[in-house]
Amino acid sequence: MDELITLDYGSGGKKTARLIEEYIVPAFENPALRALGDGALLSGAEKLVFSTDSFVVDPIFFPGGDIGRLAVCGTVNDLCMGGGTPKYLSCALILEEGLPLRDLERVLASMRAAADEAGVQIVTGDTKVVERGRGDKIYVNTAGVGFLEHPGLCPDAIRPGDAVLVSGTIGDHGTAIMLARSGMLQSDLCSDCAPLGALCEAMFETGAAIRVLRDPTRGGVATTLCEFVEGRSFGIELQEEALPLRGEVQAACALLGLDPLYCANEGKLLCVVAPEDAERLLAAMRRRPEGKDAVCIGTVTERYPGRLTLQTAPGGSRMLQKLSGAQLPRIC
Amino acid sequence: MDELITLDYGSGGKKTARLIEEYIVPAFENPALRALGDGALLSGAEKLVFSTDSFVVDPIFFPGGDIGRLAVCGTVNDLCMGGGTPKYLSCALILEEGLPLRDLERVLASMRAAADEAGVQIVTGDTKVVERGRGDKIYVNTAGVGFLEHPGLCPDAIRPGDAVLVSGTIGDHGTAIMLARSGMLQSDLCSDCAPLGALCEAMFETGAAIRVLRDPTRGGVATTLCEFVEGRSFGIELQEEALPLRGEVQAACALLGLDPLYCANEGKLLCVVAPEDAERLLAAMRRRPEGKDAVCIGTVTERYPGRLTLQTAPGGSRMLQKLSGAQLPRIC
Repeated sequence: MDELITLDYGSGGKKTARLIEEYIVPAFENPALRALGDGALLSGAEKLVFSTDSFVVDPIFFPGGDIGRLAVCGTVNDLCMGGGTPKYLSCALILEEGLPLRDLERVLASMRAAADEAGVQIVTGDTKVVERGRGDKIYVNTAGVGFLEHPGLCPDAIRPGDAVLVSGTIGDHGTAIMLARSGMLQSDLCSDCAPLGALCEAMFETGAAIRVLRDPTRGGVATTLCEFVEGRSFGIELQEEALPLRGEVQAACALLGLDPLYCANEGKLLCVVAPEDAERLLAAMRRRPEGKDAVCIGTVTERYPGRLTLQTAPGGSRMLQKLSGAQLPRIC
Repeated sequence: MDELITLDYGSGGKKTARLIEEYIVPAFENPALRALGDGALLSGAEKLVFSTDSFVVDPIFFPGGDIGRLAVCGTVNDLCMGGGTPKYLSCALILEEGLPLRDLERVLASMRAAADEAGVQIVTGDTKVVERGRGDKIYVNTAGVGFLEHPGLCPDAIRPGDAVLVSGTIGDHGTAIMLARSGMLQSDLCSDCAPLGALCEAMFETGAAIRVLRDPTRGGVATTLCEFVEGRSFGIELQEEALPLRGEVQAACALLGLDPLYCANEGKLLCVVAPEDAERLLAAMRRRPEGKDAVCIGTVTERYPGRLTLQTAPGGSRMLQKLSGAQLPRIC
């Protein structure tokens, strides 16, 4: 029987990983594609980083942002996480027949504002229109080019004993979208959608031995950390009580049956750093508004190689897996 | 009243131009965005070209190609037309729930084959899945990065007396898609979908004074040439009897009520060149399979500044405008 694409394949979890590993990477096989998480390192006289993301978030306007801001921040952040300084973006639009031009204007203005905030220029683009019922208002693709300034960021550089940091509260974007979609808009909860270039710069300026950076978007913190340890000789132990969580997010997750560890973030980063540099790095992060709630949430250990474990407050411990299934379809 | 997006806005003609000029360019305003047609020239230590296109062609498989081949050739050709040598592509997929994985595999294999043919690597990507009825099987975005080798290609470089060349028969892609969509598949007509890098290289090797190159995709030859002359002190006169046209395309256009001058091409280029170099350049083009039907179709003139005119076989003359309305929705 023919296997069909289901929403699970877009969740950012196990099925997405399977799609990429079994179909896409083998089809396009080349070293650059294997080397980096969400971007490619290009060889040439000058080292470039290159990344792309399509955005299909529903609804297109949500508390704390919209699909335009998300599309700029998402690609900018992918380049930053690869050690690059983002410079140029493309913007390709797939518009559904019937979209009000006013909505398009609002999205474009938001992209421009986010690009200015991130210090990048939108330099090329494309526009397609599809019939009503063949799209959903507006889909935005951005690709980005930047210059590689901090080479070597990679999960392979992680060492036992390293500290695992997060730049702020987790699950804000995912829960804000799910709340907006459910029609429960009375909450103060906003997406964290923000460009992270200035925070990264402040982090690199400390000279700390940063092993890897990653923005935990689709699939959330748990899925990203699972990817760090998968097939490697070390594991990561998270401290549940250390996880920074807004009260509103906790309440919304309880209401919607979500786990904040698997909820998307769009303005947060995870960082693995040498233990002796952790405090200094956290201090630098906290001096930036987008890093003010930065905290250490766990450590790298040899105890359970390849595993992500959560030490619960009462002293228990449980294994965390990658997101499986489509907990939050069309979250970005 | 709120103005709504209609299919016309995606036709590649007047409405698309309006959308770009009145909404997109003002929103993102910067010199790179204004400078080039379908790509951006990036400043940096090494000159880079950068381009993007989303592909929403319906059907996704058609005689002579599929959405994957189209997505690679489209972006590769945009970079070539900007004087660049394409090197790296991204691939971002928007999959509709229910797409058979077998179809995805076929599209990915086709992208890989086209990338190999064009000498580029697909180095980064993204995958999203949308619910049934929020997409149409598969939409593909490619962005491309290349190195600028031939700077200065631009309609501003065109001079009165220059020759206007086309690399082969016109309207093949557009009519092949429309025939496939109409269910009339008995025709031998195939899309011309092909990468044009090798042809461009052969053209530059002649040392001919090439003013501008452009691939006449959506909107066809007439719309592209209108863009060359628009607001400038020269016009272009086309000779109707010189237009290279397959018999099948002529028949299909008659049947479907289409004008081949407005039908999309996906493996052809238009070139404006100094008159003294035209014959030499045509000879070089004809030595390549994708340029074997290359021919001079018109001249640049001061007679009707800003206008594109067609000299008909019986000795008449008519003005050609940009495509207006959606003659061929979702052609690429």
